[in-house]
Amino acid sequence: MTLPVDLKDVEEAQARIRPHIHRTPVITCRQLDLQAGTRLFLKCENLQKAGAFKSRGACNAVFAASDAVAQRGFVTHSSGNHAAALARAADRRGSAAQIVMPSNSSEVKIAAVQGYGAAVTFCEPNLAAREAAAGEILETTGGALIHPYDAELIVAGQGTATLEMLEQVPDLDAIVVPVGGGGLLAGTLVAAKALKPEIQVIAVEPRGADDAYRSWKSGTWVPSVAPQTIADGLLTSLGSINFKIIRKLVDVIWRVEEATILRAMQLILERAKLVVEPSAAVPLAGLLESPELLEGEFTREHKRVGVVLSGGNVDLQRLRFGASTPTT
Amino acid sequence: MTLPVDLKDVEEAQARIRPHIHRTPVITCRQLDLQAGTRLFLKCENLQKAGAFKSRGACNAVFAASDAVAQRGFVTHSSGNHAAALARAADRRGSAAQIVMPSNSSEVKIAAVQGYGAAVTFCEPNLAAREAAAGEILETTGGALIHPYDAELIVAGQGTATLEMLEQVPDLDAIVVPVGGGGLLAGTLVAAKALKPEIQVIAVEPRGADDAYRSWKSGTWVPSVAPQTIADGLLTSLGSINFKIIRKLVDVIWRVEEATILRAMQLILERAKLVVEPSAAVPLAGLLESPELLEGEFTREHKRVGVVLSGGNVDLQRLRFGASTPTT
Repeated sequence: MTLPVDLKDVEEAQARIRPHIHRTPVITCRQLDLQAGTRLFLKCENLQKAGAFKSRGACNAVFAASDAVAQRGFVTHSSGNHAAALARAADRRGSAAQIVMPSNSSEVKIAAVQGYGAAVTFCEPNLAAREAAAGEILETTGGALIHPYDAELIVAGQGTATLEMLEQVPDLDAIVVPVGGGGLLAGTLVAAKALKPEIQVIAVEPRGADDAYRSWKSGTWVPSVAPQTIADGLLTSLGSINFKIIRKLVDVIWRVEEATILRAMQLILERAKLVVEPSAAVPLAGLLESPELLEGEFTREHKRVGVVLSGGNVDLQRLRFGASTPTT
Repeated sequence: MTLPVDLKDVEEAQARIRPHIHRTPVITCRQLDLQAGTRLFLKCENLQKAGAFKSRGACNAVFAASDAVAQRGFVTHSSGNHAAALARAADRRGSAAQIVMPSNSSEVKIAAVQGYGAAVTFCEPNLAAREAAAGEILETTGGALIHPYDAELIVAGQGTATLEMLEQVPDLDAIVVPVGGGGLLAGTLVAAKALKPEIQVIAVEPRGADDAYRSWKSGTWVPSVAPQTIADGLLTSLGSINFKIIRKLVDVIWRVEEATILRAMQLILERAKLVVEPSAAVPLAGLLESPELLEGEFTREHKRVGVVLSGGNVDLQRLRFGASTPTT
């Protein structure tokens, strides 16, 4: 079966978006290595434009559009990082952006989207209302819908984080990413498995939002029902295009507890000195909960593991930290 | 007058410490640029080993020592980043480290020093008690005192941050650093002015701990009396070796209010997604308070300004953030 996105798509995306995004650094932190029991290479997409990897896919979709489409503008529905990323990408293209946001979106996120010049339409906080509101705008403006995660150009764009990481650290044994809608995971899989067929790609998902795990385990797409997790970026349902890729290529999907996500987030803040949102801490949470990392000729401590820190957009006022984690 | 440290010392330090420290990334953040009204290049020493630039000087002093000295071990007095940096450097050399810390040092910092295998001796929280305790240990062990900031090898080591930054971003118009004891500022001056005589080096100091400003203004060393600032890394008195260099080479010293330091710290956390300690936010605070940045043919917005984010060791539990800063 041919997959909907291949390495060439990701390479084209990389060339297309290069002027519009950061080449984010890869950071190492021995204190985190000791906690995880393996050697970590943190790909800092929390330092990406608009604070998340979402700028990659949004820029790819916006700059791949024809001039005629760009003139009519771009539309999406999102309460989170894709909203700001699309608003920014459209602004750079000189296009209008209309963003449907749930009425309960945080003020900081609304201000960020409006700061990039996008028009915001509010709707009831559910998927049906979001899609209906976006549909109305599309009919009126003739603009293009840029789906937050389930679209080929978005997947190809998100895959560029892995292309970059493998340029920066070629000899990785594994890559660990969070999975929500699956755009980042699908892009990671396409890029990593084409460049290094032997690399292991591990996805991590909160137990309270484990539709990707259940879909992967059962081999059929399982809808997400009333997901609950502090990792707000991972509340979305797995996309169908993404599932085709994930089903074929992913090595394993781990599930993690909420308390481990919080602990991982605190470790990244305190030890790696990086501000990350809860979703970005989910891969480290997986490594903290899973002592049996990977089969093979190396012991865990000699593995070189890439971790995508997916985003840094978190309301610091809401953080309540526990006692500092002990130094090891 | 020949200065006590020159570019060659800094270059030797760079070669000496390379295996022992991180080459930290330089990060840009348009949202911070808009706040500062100029183009910022953030040298992330908060991501340095042991969480601060202090690892550079400590490694330089420890690895420059003779084997005979290394065998007797290293001694210092410090409540902060130098303590952990020296403990780590001594550990890497295979030497003993004895650290005198004030009895009111934070538990996290004590644990960090002990985590590197150093022996901690507690003393009353004042400079006389610290020096007396260190003196006793020196007499007993015959070890070498590694002063936290006022020593040639320390200055040369701290200067390597600027050597690196100018390799990473050669075309800087200015560099802004905090000043406390003056080791970082002196090292920055030696490296920057030798490599790029036209570059402007700006030091920033809290108004409540402005002995460097007063010394520079008056042309004579002014002692620090009862300094008060949230920037705990800058409570130290200006070193005399450092003052010789600063007096001759610094372009200007700015002073900032406590409220601006807190605002700058929050901006760096929220916008640049980096955890920094208050001292590391002092340079940005200076840029926020000083609209008249630099004379010359460029307007402020076209200036390229390197900022050393000096460290990231902050107790996150103690942070109490105000309302989020508005997006621009």
